[in-house]
Formats: sequence, C-alpha cells, structure tokens
Amino acid sequence: MKILLTNDDGIFAEGLCALYRSLALDHEVVVVAPEAERSAVGHAITLSDPLRVKIVRRGKEFWGYAVSGTPADCVKIAFYELVGPVDLVISGINRGANVGINVLYSGTVSAATEATILGTPALAVSLAAYQNEDYCFAAYFISTLVEELIHWPLPKTFCLNINVPNLPAHLIKGVKLTRQGTRKLKERFEKRVDPHGNIYYWQCGEEFLEEDPSTDVIAIKQGFISITPLNHDLTDFSLLQTLANIQISY
Amino acid sequence: MKILLTNDDGIFAEGLCALYRSLALDHEVVVVAPEAERSAVGHAITLSDPLRVKIVRRGKEFWGYAVSGTPADCVKIAFYELVGPVDLVISGINRGANVGINVLYSGTVSAATEATILGTPALAVSLAAYQNEDYCFAAYFISTLVEELIHWPLPKTFCLNINVPNLPAHLIKGVKLTRQGTRKLKERFEKRVDPHGNIYYWQCGEEFLEEDPSTDVIAIKQGFISITPLNHDLTDFSLLQTLANIQISY
Repeated sequence: MKILLTNDDGIFAEGLCALYRSLALDHEVVVVAPEAERSAVGHAITLSDPLRVKIVRRGKEFWGYAVSGTPADCVKIAFYELVGPVDLVISGINRGANVGINVLYSGTVSAATEATILGTPALAVSLAAYQNEDYCFAAYFISTLVEELIHWPLPKTFCLNINVPNLPAHLIKGVKLTRQGTRKLKERFEKRVDPHGNIYYWQCGEEFLEEDPSTDVIAIKQGFISITPLNHDLTDFSLLQTLANIQISY
Repeated sequence: MKILLTNDDGIFAEGLCALYRSLALDHEVVVVAPEAERSAVGHAITLSDPLRVKIVRRGKEFWGYAVSGTPADCVKIAFYELVGPVDLVISGINRGANVGINVLYSGTVSAATEATILGTPALAVSLAAYQNEDYCFAAYFISTLVEELIHWPLPKTFCLNINVPNLPAHLIKGVKLTRQGTRKLKERFEKRVDPHGNIYYWQCGEEFLEEDPSTDVIAIKQGFISITPLNHDLTDFSLLQTLANIQISY
C-alpha cells in the first residue's frame, strides 16, 4: 500500500517515527507533517498565510515534507501538490489520548477527517500518555491492523479514531469498538498576574466526567484499545426530524 | 434573556455590531469576542499560551471583552471566568457563508458548538457574502428567530447553524431546514516563487461540488435562509453497527 503519514506533534516527533519504522517494512510510506507542534488546532486550515514546504531528514531513518501549516493543511497539500492519491492516510502516533470532547480539538483527528473528505480512508492514532511514552506496542498494533483492515466490512472511505493505552502489551485488555464521549471536561481557568501587573489566564482541562461505558473515554480508562469510527457530517439528524414541520415566519 | 455574543471576525467586526444592535433592545447582551480576526481556525483552543482579556469599547454602541484567543476560547472563558451562565450564545454574524465542508473549518460554528458542550443552546450565524455585505436583514431575522425559538420543540441544549443570503428581504425565498453538505470543494494550491527565489503555496477553495438539494450549500445557492441543527458527536453510528461483530486480534 501507499501510505501517507502525518501528525500534529511535528515531523520529528517520536510517535510518527515509531509508526514509520513499523509500516515501512511492508509499505511505501510518504511523510508530510507540520514542521513544528500544532496541538489543539482543531480542524484549522491556513488561508491567510502562504504555506512553505521543506524536505527534511531524520538521520538515516526517513525523509519527509515539513509544512508550515496545520495537520489538515498537510493532508490537503500532500493530496493536491506533493504526493497525489494514496491508499491510506495515518495520522499519529499522537502523544496523549484523543478521546471524548477532545476529539473536536484534535489536530491528529482533523488530518484523518480531512483525508476522508478527500475520499481516502484514514486512521488517527493516539497513545494515552503524557509521560514515559512507549510507542512500540501502538506502532506494532497499527501495522497489524493495517493488514487486517482489508478483511473488514468497511466502505471505500472511512475514518477510525484509535487510542492505545500506554501499557505493556500483556496488560492491555483487548480492543473495544466505541462511540465518542460527548460529556464536557472538568476544566477551569487559572488566573495569574505577570511581572508587569497584568492579568492573564491559563486554560486547564482537568478530567473527564464521562460515565458511559460504550465511550472511547471509558475504554481507555479501563485499559482497552479504543476504535471509534468517525464521520464529518455534523448534522443532528434527530433534531432535524423533530423540526421538520416547523413553519418559520419573519 | 441573557445572551452571550461572540464571533470569529473579531470584536470590532460589522456583523457582530449589527447583531448587538438588534438584540440589545430586548435582551441583556454581553460581548466576549476575539481581539482580532480568527477565521478558518476550526475548533481550536489555546493551551500553549496564556489568554489575555481587555475591555474595549465600540464608540457609544457597546463595550465588551476582547480575548487574545479563538472563538471557542471566548466561549469557555466567558462561561468560567468573565460572565458565567447565559441563556443563549450567538456567534456571528460571520462575513461569508459557513456551509458544507466549511462548517468543519469554521471558528463561528466552533463557538456555538463549544456553548452546547458547556450545556448552553447556541446559534451560529453567517451572511453568505464576501463583498457588499448588508447585515441588516440577517440581524433582524435573528432577533425575530430568538423570540420564536421558545415555541419550537427544542431540547435543553441545541446548536443551529444559520446562513442568510446577502439579498434584499423581498428576494429571499424563505427558510429551509437543511443537512450539512459533505462533498469536498473544488480546490487547488497556487504555487508561487517569492522575490528570494523560494517556493510557497496559496490554498484556494474554489467552489462547492454539492448537488444534494437537502443541504445547506444548495439552500443558500437558491436564495433560502438555511438552518442546520448540529451536534458534537462525530461517531459514525452506522459504521459502528457494521463493525459490531468484528473480532480484532493482534
């Protein structure tokens, strides 16, 4: 397969490199990724500035295109300019989980969503850890999954959001197909005063309040690998039906 | 009602001001908006930098909080720090339509989505124009709609994405409840060379390829006001069901 690899932690991130190593043995892997970290950028695209592209090397391991934009920009410019069509786009491995409401803020996921908009199947891959990250098992799991996917009853384009616990393989409980958690985070703003006497605020997301066991949030908490199929149609069809017969005057 | 007004064109944008004028007659309106334009930022939040807040005035018309962040940041910091709970959040009036795939890149929509995550109903409002914008009718329509909404069979929280054609009132064909268009844009990258001999790219979204008459894209093209209910659960439930019985080994 021809696979496009991208991420939102930047082209030199450990997680992308681990994925490259495990996929390049059996596939043609092209890397187009942000030149630097672009976390919590949501599904942003760069319209007000031009994009720059540099070819960079990570030692002897790989070379790739470093783009001065967001993960979604990377997928678009790969598709239209740098690479052309591929069989699969993989975004990751992100440092930190992308589950629940955080899926909406995730650059990692937006790259995968962008791929499906352009008609290419995609995986977003995240490791549920912010310290002592070990990408080995997650990278191995994804390379195995890529071989298996062809046997799944999948449509021509699909987007799977995959989160892997940061645990040794023998402690991982298995794989769960999940839905995205929708409950808000426990969060707050920390108010501080700078040395010049001016107030500023830090935004702090603290913990998930999710309880639904069918969600990605709980699956990861319980030590399962979580796989959530995502779409890019935000329509609330149930509410659309409820409102169907309303007469709106003005 | 207590209404929080925000946008992604910045606190001094014409569209926000028009909406303020039409709502402030009957409601308590608080403005918390980005200090400058934040278009195509998607559902971004600011985690790596602190947020600054300034109180600014627009002549004698209103004062508001100008935030050094994204539309989603504005809603969060309004909710947790600056304003507290409100009855309704309105984001807009955006300069330019937010329909089809562009809904995913829209800061205007992400502010409304963020409100619903926090449990507050919200409207995202956009004017389908990039020149000769006339916000008068759209602002009037929204102030009428706000009075009518209480009679609709709506849940406690909801998010409506509203697009208004840039036409005189008598040329507008009516209101359509629509779904979000999902087809990709016709788009391209324009490759240029800077005066120093370096290549750069401009991203250009050119036109919609949508044909489904039940979508927001087509409703606006035909001269209707489009109202699309949105949700913030990206799960593809139909694919989730298809995959339900898959055994995943590794």
